[in-house]
Amino acid sequence: MSWTGKMEHCCRFIILACLAVVYLPAAYCDCGYQSCNPTKPDRLNVHIVPHTHDDVGWLKTVDQYFYGANNSIQHAGVQYIIDSVVSELDKDPKRRFIYVEMAFFERWWREQNDATKEKVTGYVNEGRLEFINGGWSMNDEACTHYSSIIDQMTLGHRFLKDTFGKCGIPKIAWHIDPFGHSREQASLFAQMGFDGFYFARIDEDDRRARKSDKRMEAIWRGDPNLGRPADLFFGALFGNLYTPPTGFCFDRGCDDPPIQDDKNLFDYNVDERVDAFVKWVTLQSLAFQTNHIMLTMGSDFQYENANAWYKNLDKLMKYVNAKERDTNIYTLYSTPSCYTYNLNKANKTWTTKEQDFFPYADSPHSDWSGYFVSRVAFKGNERRSNNLLQVCKQLEVLAGSQSSKDPEAEVETLKEYMGVSQHHDSITGTAKQHVNDDYTKRLHIGNEKCQKLVGLAVGQLMAKNSSTEGPKTQFCNYLNISMCPATENADSFAVILYNPIGRNVSTYVKIPVNGASYHVAGPDGSSVTNQVQAVSDAVQRVRRDRGSAKNDLFFFAHVPALGFATYQVTSAKQALKRVRPQALSNNVKAVPAPADSDTVISTDVIKVTFDSTGLLKSMTNMDSNVTVNVKQSFYWYNGSAGNHESGQASGAYIFRPNSSTPMDLFNGKSVSGKVVKGSEVIEFHQTFQPWLNQIVRLYKAKNFVEFEWVVGPIPFMDGLGKEIITKFDTDIDSEDIFYTDSNGRQMMKRQKNHREDYPYVDLEPVAGNYYPINSRIFINDKNKQFTIMTDRSEGGSSLKSGSVELMVHRRLLHDDGKGVGEPLNETGQFGDGLMAIGKHRVLINQTPQAATIHRELGEEIYMAPWVFFSSQTSGWNKTYDTMKSFINMNLPRNVHLLTLELWAETEILIRLEHMFEKDDDPEYSKNVTVSLKGLFPTLNITGVDEHTLSANQELESATRLQWHTKDGVTPEKFSPPPVVAPSYDVMLSAMQIRTFIATFNRA
Amino acid sequence: MSWTGKMEHCCRFIILACLAVVYLPAAYCDCGYQSCNPTKPDRLNVHIVPHTHDDVGWLKTVDQYFYGANNSIQHAGVQYIIDSVVSELDKDPKRRFIYVEMAFFERWWREQNDATKEKVTGYVNEGRLEFINGGWSMNDEACTHYSSIIDQMTLGHRFLKDTFGKCGIPKIAWHIDPFGHSREQASLFAQMGFDGFYFARIDEDDRRARKSDKRMEAIWRGDPNLGRPADLFFGALFGNLYTPPTGFCFDRGCDDPPIQDDKNLFDYNVDERVDAFVKWVTLQSLAFQTNHIMLTMGSDFQYENANAWYKNLDKLMKYVNAKERDTNIYTLYSTPSCYTYNLNKANKTWTTKEQDFFPYADSPHSDWSGYFVSRVAFKGNERRSNNLLQVCKQLEVLAGSQSSKDPEAEVETLKEYMGVSQHHDSITGTAKQHVNDDYTKRLHIGNEKCQKLVGLAVGQLMAKNSSTEGPKTQFCNYLNISMCPATENADSFAVILYNPIGRNVSTYVKIPVNGASYHVAGPDGSSVTNQVQAVSDAVQRVRRDRGSAKNDLFFFAHVPALGFATYQVTSAKQALKRVRPQALSNNVKAVPAPADSDTVISTDVIKVTFDSTGLLKSMTNMDSNVTVNVKQSFYWYNGSAGNHESGQASGAYIFRPNSSTPMDLFNGKSVSGKVVKGSEVIEFHQTFQPWLNQIVRLYKAKNFVEFEWVVGPIPFMDGLGKEIITKFDTDIDSEDIFYTDSNGRQMMKRQKNHREDYPYVDLEPVAGNYYPINSRIFINDKNKQFTIMTDRSEGGSSLKSGSVELMVHRRLLHDDGKGVGEPLNETGQFGDGLMAIGKHRVLINQTPQAATIHRELGEEIYMAPWVFFSSQTSGWNKTYDTMKSFINMNLPRNVHLLTLELWAETEILIRLEHMFEKDDDPEYSKNVTVSLKGLFPTLNITGVDEHTLSANQELESATRLQWHTKDGVTPEKFSPPPVVAPSYDVMLSAMQIRTFIATFNRA
Repeated sequence: MSWTGKMEHCCRFIILACLAVVYLPAAYCDCGYQSCNPTKPDRLNVHIVPHTHDDVGWLKTVDQYFYGANNSIQHAGVQYIIDSVVSELDKDPKRRFIYVEMAFFERWWREQNDATKEKVTGYVNEGRLEFINGGWSMNDEACTHYSSIIDQMTLGHRFLKDTFGKCGIPKIAWHIDPFGHSREQASLFAQMGFDGFYFARIDEDDRRARKSDKRMEAIWRGDPNLGRPADLFFGALFGNLYTPPTGFCFDRGCDDPPIQDDKNLFDYNVDERVDAFVKWVTLQSLAFQTNHIMLTMGSDFQYENANAWYKNLDKLMKYVNAKERDTNIYTLYSTPSCYTYNLNKANKTWTTKEQDFFPYADSPHSDWSGYFVSRVAFKGNERRSNNLLQVCKQLEVLAGSQSSKDPEAEVETLKEYMGVSQHHDSITGTAKQHVNDDYTKRLHIGNEKCQKLVGLAVGQLMAKNSSTEGPKTQFCNYLNISMCPATENADSFAVILYNPIGRNVSTYVKIPVNGASYHVAGPDGSSVTNQVQAVSDAVQRVRRDRGSAKNDLFFFAHVPALGFATYQVTSAKQALKRVRPQALSNNVKAVPAPADSDTVISTDVIKVTFDSTGLLKSMTNMDSNVTVNVKQSFYWYNGSAGNHESGQASGAYIFRPNSSTPMDLFNGKSVSGKVVKGSEVIEFHQTFQPWLNQIVRLYKAKNFVEFEWVVGPIPFMDGLGKEIITKFDTDIDSEDIFYTDSNGRQMMKRQKNHREDYPYVDLEPVAGNYYPINSRIFINDKNKQFTIMTDRSEGGSSLKSGSVELMVHRRLLHDDGKGVGEPLNETGQFGDGLMAIGKHRVLINQTPQAATIHRELGEEIYMAPWVFFSSQTSGWNKTYDTMKSFINMNLPRNVHLLTLELWAETEILIRLEHMFEKDDDPEYSKNVTVSLKGLFPTLNITGVDEHTLSANQELESATRLQWHTKDGVTPEKFSPPPVVAPSYDVMLSAMQIRTFIATFNRA
Repeated sequence: MSWTGKMEHCCRFIILACLAVVYLPAAYCDCGYQSCNPTKPDRLNVHIVPHTHDDVGWLKTVDQYFYGANNSIQHAGVQYIIDSVVSELDKDPKRRFIYVEMAFFERWWREQNDATKEKVTGYVNEGRLEFINGGWSMNDEACTHYSSIIDQMTLGHRFLKDTFGKCGIPKIAWHIDPFGHSREQASLFAQMGFDGFYFARIDEDDRRARKSDKRMEAIWRGDPNLGRPADLFFGALFGNLYTPPTGFCFDRGCDDPPIQDDKNLFDYNVDERVDAFVKWVTLQSLAFQTNHIMLTMGSDFQYENANAWYKNLDKLMKYVNAKERDTNIYTLYSTPSCYTYNLNKANKTWTTKEQDFFPYADSPHSDWSGYFVSRVAFKGNERRSNNLLQVCKQLEVLAGSQSSKDPEAEVETLKEYMGVSQHHDSITGTAKQHVNDDYTKRLHIGNEKCQKLVGLAVGQLMAKNSSTEGPKTQFCNYLNISMCPATENADSFAVILYNPIGRNVSTYVKIPVNGASYHVAGPDGSSVTNQVQAVSDAVQRVRRDRGSAKNDLFFFAHVPALGFATYQVTSAKQALKRVRPQALSNNVKAVPAPADSDTVISTDVIKVTFDSTGLLKSMTNMDSNVTVNVKQSFYWYNGSAGNHESGQASGAYIFRPNSSTPMDLFNGKSVSGKVVKGSEVIEFHQTFQPWLNQIVRLYKAKNFVEFEWVVGPIPFMDGLGKEIITKFDTDIDSEDIFYTDSNGRQMMKRQKNHREDYPYVDLEPVAGNYYPINSRIFINDKNKQFTIMTDRSEGGSSLKSGSVELMVHRRLLHDDGKGVGEPLNETGQFGDGLMAIGKHRVLINQTPQAATIHRELGEEIYMAPWVFFSSQTSGWNKTYDTMKSFINMNLPRNVHLLTLELWAETEILIRLEHMFEKDDDPEYSKNVTVSLKGLFPTLNITGVDEHTLSANQELESATRLQWHTKDGVTPEKFSPPPVVAPSYDVMLSAMQIRTFIATFNRA
């Protein structure tokens, strides 16, 4: 080579080297299991997992936590945590950190400059920074609906995937703080492709048993319907929650000794610290079956100053490893993924787990079953917001970019705030009051934006001419208490209903009005029977002076599958210009119930009998020829303030009645029954207490009995905390067995005073038998089933044969000592105590047919038609379509369109769900196929990629680690028949959800 | 250019660029005023000064603070602070930080790797990190001796200079926490070349006055003897101590709101925060006279997570500066140096300040004059340790490397621990008990090491043959309570005295023995008169069962200038083999004082009369023919527990008697006088209380009266805190005037109930007139002067004409609320209360001659001959020189060899001091010249470089900023006649200290 050549060569080399220095770190991609720090086969490998647990709101609001504001309540600032960790990861490629909550990380990421983003991306690619779990929040598992869990995980996972690509796909689920664990959650995580699932809070008796026979880590069978593909490896943490070993916390709030290794200074403590560490590690290793253990090095909002952590961990690990030959202990920086990978390689045979982890007790008398019900009004608000979110997402797809003409009309805010609401201190009702107010404010803001979108979108969709603007729409958020400015003083208005379900739906609409008679015209212009009746005393009590409507207008509306229908309401005075009096509202009779005999109310389908005191006596479903003798009343448990057995009080988390016998809120004489009977609806009004009403309601063509309860303000001047339940005592011979749903999907069989995995000690006969009720609870015998459907998350149980109880509201005067630091004493808008209104829909069926009914009703409750209004009525029929469906068929009765969401300009996210469990029904539990081709008339599907449940991996390429059990290797891959052009047939088996990103163009 | 040439050129360029990237940051040197961030002439420039204040021990020990251990007491970890700041300085070259305490920085630096050191050096060179003050600790100014201040500043400054070169020379003195400020400190700082001096704690009345007429910053005339070269620009901080403006603290312990500037999140607060900041800044600017103000952004142990600070400061400054046109306010990152530089450029005329800032009151009734005396035993221990340190440093020079044969024999440890002891919560007695124990332990360790060095060094110096080993030596640390294992059971031993003063010294030696008679042979073998007397009851009471000596042996020893002398002590039994009985100990008579008449004790020089109750009545100095009628007794103030006027209690910091009249501890009858009279020493023993004794002692040839007080355990079972004083009431007509020393050097004239700079409000008639007494206090009239010399720092006053009082011990039962969180209740080794022993040497002179006497005595007290022992006596005179001086002349009486210290293998640090003030004496206050050439017979001085006082800059090149005052420009440069070969004559003017680094070789 000539000198010139050499120079050229040298120069190129230097250029390359310089470039390498600049670009390689960012480009270097080695995430995944291959980026794990090496372990040693013949040692006890101690996986040091630096982590922070960042509550998406709790004692402070999510934004206060992010910024580190309001530190007088709690010192915590997530912005600093991520800043600091990023700085520290810079210092040593062996260091690791995991981050979990995307609600925070996204806020942080948005504030960073390109250089920082590039650097962080490099760390993600190298596995230094790993995202674990990766949902928007770390969701609760008891009070969350599966629909919202999937949405919030999808939101977080999408952010990660969009931001970091392949290395942004979390491998491990991480619910180290939620207060108990549901099987449906495990199933959903399995479907998201997770390789493992770690959590900390399991019943301490369970933990004791699992430690003693090394079942801390096992395979959870997530869903018997789905079988092995829903299996998920799980690990329960050692028992110090998710904190570091005692004495080894190096965070600002900890006073543990630093590792002092300068022999020139006083207090050199290396030997003593190493000994203490070895002792802990050795003890912990006895509870686990491989030569790997994991230490969670972090806790709530820790790592604000990550240097203190890493500096001391570096030293600790160095000195522990220096004694490796003596102790056989080897420490390494690791992550839950790397730990899982090493367990997997250990080639052990793992036990299996079938049931769930509810309820959770962390010590005797401390059953965390209070939060199933805490802040029941917020729980209702959240569920209703999810209903709107689904409507909103669908309409963004259906209306396209048109809906974004108004930047305030958008869905992202509600997606994010619903994600925040799923956090395990939000939907659970375990945040401080000011934080719950913040959650409520967020939902309100998100709802407002979605309502704008919904209004614009439906308007656009109904306009016959694409250049026509849609009508101005108005939304009423307080229809449940008969408040609606849009209708209560209007002589005429349009009622618009949008049905997000893929089947036609018929629903009763209740609209606050002031007139005594109205004409309702259906989409085709024909008159619709309706009735007008006085706003009930119960609702007036709640409404106080907000709103002026004297009456409620009821009519039965039909809304087409995935479509809208509009109804025109006109006051009698105006309507009589066009229609006959017969077409106006029907008469309603309101009469007191007789005090000396039973009262019967009935439709063609249902008959309900009340005794002479006004209490429920029996219910008959005439369609299915089932009668259940049933008494219903409200009762209260006196929330414990602590007693001689335990100081544990009932509070936001904990349910602890001071007696197992609840006190009847029936006054012993009469609940002052009143019958209100019209052509559409028949009601029986009960007043149990001045602060407790119930309306038992039958709808002309509906097969359920609606129990609308109006509870509050719960009195407290006697100094006693009160937990209000509704209890149905039936003649069904259900023995100790009852069934509750898991996150609104799978039904879990419950047995009183029994746990699957460990001997149950009956310290709390009530609280220890309470389970989360997301959507339904039932009891049955061979013949009859009694099912209660809820409109939100509650808690409930069956404490004796034939009995079902649901807690509907709680007001407590003591903090339960689990951290929130406030008694659950919601004072409400008026300061005298929060009032709550909700509905229980009760079904009585022959047991074999019951599932078909409750599955369908469950879908209709959580994705109800969204009702809104327009004052614009003239020329409506000329300008607008009055009814339109955006699906070409009614979906089969067992298929649910779980998700229809805009994914990108030409992509939609579709989830189809088989709503039935395999033993629900001989017919509907069968496999079913739906073709996506042409399913949506306005959307040409041009391609379909099936994805894992959270849509961050193509299903085909998603692989999961395989584990040995005594029944063989698991999990199997989810391998449904591929969905291919041209028909894009989607076959669904029982309980299956299939997730697609489909390309489309607009027809 | 050919292609080849181009390639070559390109290649070179790339290589250079690469090198630049790697090397430039470290090599780039731009520290000093030119590295300041720019200001704006037409704006109010707000200098944002990020800083941390790191106490070198207080609530935790210095090592606990360094490591962040013991955080349950106080969260503080200096290692993390420096780590964190270094990381944050990385992020923006405009950022600044100052660091102050070298005791911490040196610990940190030692732990760093080369890469970090290089990076930090880069920041120092760029002015991002600036060392301010830079002593080993931030020394107290009330209880510290100038000798130790100079040493501890030199230690810190040397570390900085050695580590960072020119950029490691601090420009600004920074005493933001010490509790009052001495004029001598200002003078020393001026002599160290500082351009400015900032502090926070001045009397709030003073601050109010200074704010109102903008005298917060001015020129302090540090020493009227030295004149303008001792002038020093100073600034008193605004008044929130050294903390940030209210609401703008971004540290872990603060709950102030972060700057929330993401409009997407809730709680955006930029406008509100900017407004609040502007309001503060505007208010502060009213108290200062230029368009610059300084905000101290930090506080105690802050910046552990510097990111939180800088991130929020960055934002705050950005948004404030964005409104610059509206507000006229411009913020910049700055340092005290840059602030000072801008003040200097502002070209204002500054006022001047003459007096000091003592005592300090931070609120009414809260006079910080208790700490002058708190932990008086520790204060004695520290002063004695300094004596040893000076001996030790000299001997390391004189003996050379020989002394380092034993690695445990070294001086650095004591240098460092003495540096720690100067900290303003150490020598002040204001640390927690466990921390004071740590300080004591450190001094003990340092002393042990120095004693080893001293023993080896003197041994080597006395060996006649250089191959001979020195004798084994033993040190006795408790001679003051007549404990000495080396002597108390020995029949013969050698007494070795080393005199660190450059003049011959005669001193009385007191040695615990068991025999009744001894022979003492002087260096020349001749018999030395001596006396043996029983260990006093007072000392026995303190000693308890530690030590077995029955008697004390007294003799008068002569030690040559900067040299040693050895005396041989032999028991009578052994000695009688060689000497006549007359050469043995003289008789001692011990008789009770008569109860019905005066008692007179006298020598040829002094006569002291006690009245029939045993109390002092008069003192006569027969040499100078002065008699003072004087009563002396002990009294106690009852330390306030707070009262209706103020909750302020007397405590470690605060002196607040609950009555201005102290209670007499004389029992009213008699102090049970006993006269113990021998040939050398005559004593009068007094017992005031079972726990309070005094021995009034005359030495045969000495011109002072020694009052040895033995105080404690102070009783406290009556629940009353007690502050014990000794009070001399003389017939001197001193009116309201008295004189106290400033750090053992300048004398300050004090006037009762008067302050120089502001109207004095007499809320605390006693505490508000207390001043620190480092070495002496005197009163006088035209004829007579009454001077008390202390052996440690105490507090004292003259509260009426002719009276002088000194507080000698305090025991308090309440915390004074200033942070230490403990009452000053020293329980001592035996748990019943700490006992303290000390000496007051009282001089009575004609006023004009008084200074000569107290100047000389002051030197001899603080640099007393160091006494130690050897059991090896046989053949002593053959093997060892018995007396040797290492200076070729007795220094002139006004010249003090302040420092003789090994600086490097061939360099020594020499400080010569003119001990007299200009008006002290017509003769001795004159200029005096000493030649260094040949001054030390064993050290050939081969070159001399004069330096500033802390030896970190050559005097000639050291320049200081010039300031305008109404008297002209100041400071002048210290420009003494240069010291040049061959004679190296050093001319000294009154109070001048000159500092030299001299090269030498050993003669």
